[in-house]
Amino acid sequence: MVVLVSTRNPLNIGAAARAMSNFGFPRLRVVKPYDAAWREARSAVGASSLLTSAEECASVAAAVEDCSLVVGTTAAHNRELQHPLRTLNEGARLIRKCSSRVALLFGSEKRGLSNEDLSHCHWLMRIPTREEHGSMNLGQAVAVCLYELTRASRAPRRIEKTKRATTKQSEALTQRLMEALIASEYVKRNAAVSTETKIRRMVRRLELPEADADTWLGILRQVLWKLEQQR
Amino acid sequence: MVVLVSTRNPLNIGAAARAMSNFGFPRLRVVKPYDAAWREARSAVGASSLLTSAEECASVAAAVEDCSLVVGTTAAHNRELQHPLRTLNEGARLIRKCSSRVALLFGSEKRGLSNEDLSHCHWLMRIPTREEHGSMNLGQAVAVCLYELTRASRAPRRIEKTKRATTKQSEALTQRLMEALIASEYVKRNAAVSTETKIRRMVRRLELPEADADTWLGILRQVLWKLEQQR
Repeated sequence: MVVLVSTRNPLNIGAAARAMSNFGFPRLRVVKPYDAAWREARSAVGASSLLTSAEECASVAAAVEDCSLVVGTTAAHNRELQHPLRTLNEGARLIRKCSSRVALLFGSEKRGLSNEDLSHCHWLMRIPTREEHGSMNLGQAVAVCLYELTRASRAPRRIEKTKRATTKQSEALTQRLMEALIASEYVKRNAAVSTETKIRRMVRRLELPEADADTWLGILRQVLWKLEQQR
Repeated sequence: MVVLVSTRNPLNIGAAARAMSNFGFPRLRVVKPYDAAWREARSAVGASSLLTSAEECASVAAAVEDCSLVVGTTAAHNRELQHPLRTLNEGARLIRKCSSRVALLFGSEKRGLSNEDLSHCHWLMRIPTREEHGSMNLGQAVAVCLYELTRASRAPRRIEKTKRATTKQSEALTQRLMEALIASEYVKRNAAVSTETKIRRMVRRLELPEADADTWLGILRQVLWKLEQQR
């Protein structure tokens, strides 16, 4: 569950909701949002049902009371933290292991989570950004965190390897290409043997997709036909 | 390098720039941004120098000309794609292996990348979102991609063995090849535009080693010269 605390910009609420919808997190709670118009957040394309069912809470305590793990997010590198600080990668692994309800807290755009907010957290999590510019846009931070949480949940789908041209196709290509090179005087006939080896290697290195090999062969045949017309 | 194509909302450009600064990616190019006021993008807290040095390009071709790997992003699940589609996780691994310049393309908020844009890409990458709501906010998509790219950065970086042809080389090849196809009457001049996109994709799929690209270009020039002699 995502908990947005004291968010000032309705666009950011909309963006957070959109990312939640993208990655399949349906439950949103907002604590003391700055602008009461947050439900109209325009950037939430396709996320409206999620926003309509979002709950507004008066305090962080109320927002996390039914959760058994409460994780705060922070951009802090060197702030004096009273909590264990984990990278997103480490934290996400722990969150995924948790079988009961987890609250992921995001603070306001300007100040992040207050010390009072943090006191409700079990530990804190940080997206590994550059030291010189650590503070992320709220909507982007939510998207990155939810991406990491779902990242390992699907078994990595193997893409089908492209089927490569057969040796027979490669060899046909090599032969037609050699004929074209001779017809166009790129190679003189007497140097043709050494060139042929070089050309064959070059054609092999193309590692042509099988589906493309016939097209290339067709192209070569046509060029060759045209070249030989002029003899 | 991040390339934003036909972005309509300056807030999204600002958000992309902010994520780039957060994760340490300094180079931004924008292709035909919808709103000329993009430089004022307000949400780019602390990202101003990155936006000031961003380059505006007239076309995708110009924006990726000095890149040797061009990766498009898409929300498509089932669109008929002419390109290999990788998950962010798999794609990021390949991008990290690449020793030369990589362009990561993001399309417009409404339509994503066009087929013409995609024809400049070697392959496509998808953030694994829910099927029912796959389309992400642009700034959030940029943030998630850059997070994944830096996520494992502490792991030793492997250097790719073969250096691939630059986009400039591939494009030169595509152009000479098109000329040869027209000279040999493989394509009639009036069908040349649709063929060109197909041919560009085919040349990209070759993933030519850089050292071979000049040889192939030399071959094409010679064939072309010969074809044009007979006119």
